Amino acid sequence: MIDELSALRLIEERFHKASKGVELGIGDDAAAVVFDADKLVLATTDSQVEDIHFVKSLISPAELARKVVAISVSDVGAMGGVPRFILASIGFSEREDEEFLEELISGFVSSLEEFKVELIGGNLSSSNKLFLDITVLGEVEPDLMVKRSGATSGDLIFVSGSLGDSALGLKILQDGEIGDGNEFLMNRHLRPSPRLALGRELAQKQLATSMIDISDGLIIDLERITVHKELGARIELLQIPISKEYSECIRQFSDDKYELAISGGEDYELLFTSPEERQRDIQEISKNLNIKITEIGYVTEDATIQVINKNGEETYLKQRGFVHFNN
Amino acid sequence: MIDELSALRLIEERFHKASKGVELGIGDDAAAVVFDADKLVLATTDSQVEDIHFVKSLISPAELARKVVAISVSDVGAMGGVPRFILASIGFSEREDEEFLEELISGFVSSLEEFKVELIGGNLSSSNKLFLDITVLGEVEPDLMVKRSGATSGDLIFVSGSLGDSALGLKILQDGEIGDGNEFLMNRHLRPSPRLALGRELAQKQLATSMIDISDGLIIDLERITVHKELGARIELLQIPISKEYSECIRQFSDDKYELAISGGEDYELLFTSPEERQRDIQEISKNLNIKITEIGYVTEDATIQVINKNGEETYLKQRGFVHFNN
Repeated sequence: MIDELSALRLIEERFHKASKGVELGIGDDAAAVVFDADKLVLATTDSQVEDIHFVKSLISPAELARKVVAISVSDVGAMGGVPRFILASIGFSEREDEEFLEELISGFVSSLEEFKVELIGGNLSSSNKLFLDITVLGEVEPDLMVKRSGATSGDLIFVSGSLGDSALGLKILQDGEIGDGNEFLMNRHLRPSPRLALGRELAQKQLATSMIDISDGLIIDLERITVHKELGARIELLQIPISKEYSECIRQFSDDKYELAISGGEDYELLFTSPEERQRDIQEISKNLNIKITEIGYVTEDATIQVINKNGEETYLKQRGFVHFNN
Repeated sequence: MIDELSALRLIEERFHKASKGVELGIGDDAAAVVFDADKLVLATTDSQVEDIHFVKSLISPAELARKVVAISVSDVGAMGGVPRFILASIGFSEREDEEFLEELISGFVSSLEEFKVELIGGNLSSSNKLFLDITVLGEVEPDLMVKRSGATSGDLIFVSGSLGDSALGLKILQDGEIGDGNEFLMNRHLRPSPRLALGRELAQKQLATSMIDISDGLIIDLERITVHKELGARIELLQIPISKEYSECIRQFSDDKYELAISGGEDYELLFTSPEERQRDIQEISKNLNIKITEIGYVTEDATIQVINKNGEETYLKQRGFVHFNN
């Protein structure tokens, strides 16, 4: 069990520093910050709940802290923005102790440095199960902001990095026996990389007509960027980017090579659309940032998500219906 | 159990409206809002966790939604600011159903109107127990912001309204048998009134040297506004404002008339300090806003909280030590 007073003392000690834009940090009724006057303020919140999003035996406290920050700032990156400040609301159960708290705080401290954000406030409470709820405040120029809803029919669909690694990494972690040699995949689950630099670059060059970070799987997130205007998408299965490691390991879990890549969540890669004539600019960004970017299909006027296999047939017919909260 | 898709649909339906300052509301990776360029942005977060902060049998879903919004905007009011936007992160357990969701959303909708704030985003997830985590964004002029830390020795200490009602109301609710005739006290617990107008007025007239909303009890919150400069406070027990209803009912629970008033939490009254020469201005505000404001003591250089009884003796010697998360 964690003592609230010593927790607060530790937090004030570890996070107390003056920083650009922070008029008043942790320790008052509210924090007070300054944003650039000509920018929009971006705000987003994300949770990680014990035994829903993570099990404590498979992730270290430091990794957990880093992950919840990473997936939260990822949402700001997917708007083309720059994350600035964070509020952390944490519910501790009776099972966390001072050592856990120390490691969790260390994870926060290093992830704040990694993502160049500052912790400005939060809340500690008791809870039956551990939860972490992160609010990120960021900023973006009004004319550079990239929404989910800007795609038009004919736009090409791109995705960064590789898909399915995180979901496969989780399976390996859960299996518990075949970890060796699969550190890459496990790390893709435990230490996701939000594509902040890429999101920002696409926004600054105004290359993306719509953008989202893939948190719930390619198909679901494709729907999210096409549903607004009753558009759809046609993607080529063999174009879906999968890593060498995924490719080698997936056989141990499934005969279906691609299913996890198109449905597994938590990749935090960027999915975005772009007019056909900007293809070359996107290749250049890919080269400059050294991030793989793959064209996987295009936006259609037909309001369905079609996945086309190597024989030109439609596969993985979209299943709609009940979705229980899993994110 | 609540279906995520229908929950999101209901939320977008009920909260979808264009509003001043909201460039992009619910439904994208992040919300985008505009603040006045010459103001500081205030940010604060607060949680309500089932069986820690509330039990579902004693509060309705609509009251719960209103309460978590009320106590969150209260923090912005205690800075002298104006709340503007809200993000709500909710963890639903398997025990909440569609009816619960409908009532919760109704409670949110009406409380947003009551407090003139707008819901711009949030997150839904599963949880073992229901939790609601609210982030409020507000704004304040840099030179009007009232911190916890501005008090100096000799400043008078004021408190709004009456204390102990909420804690006593909770006891009545928990007792379950003596509810009748005590609606005032129960409502003070279930429907707290954040002192937004008062906080704002004190800030605009620059009357408060420090301010906090009383969430954890007078003594603890007195410490919070004096600890920064190693100051203390001397308060008169008989000056502590208690309501007629509290006064009549407390006997049923305790022989000690004042203990709950100085230690019970969740009053959300404002506790603030002011230079002696501004006393008359404060009386005027009290009259204009029709809010009782009571002078209860003064700030001292001695770094302790002294409570003086009717015989001039020190009473309720402050007990420091382990504080488990209860807020």
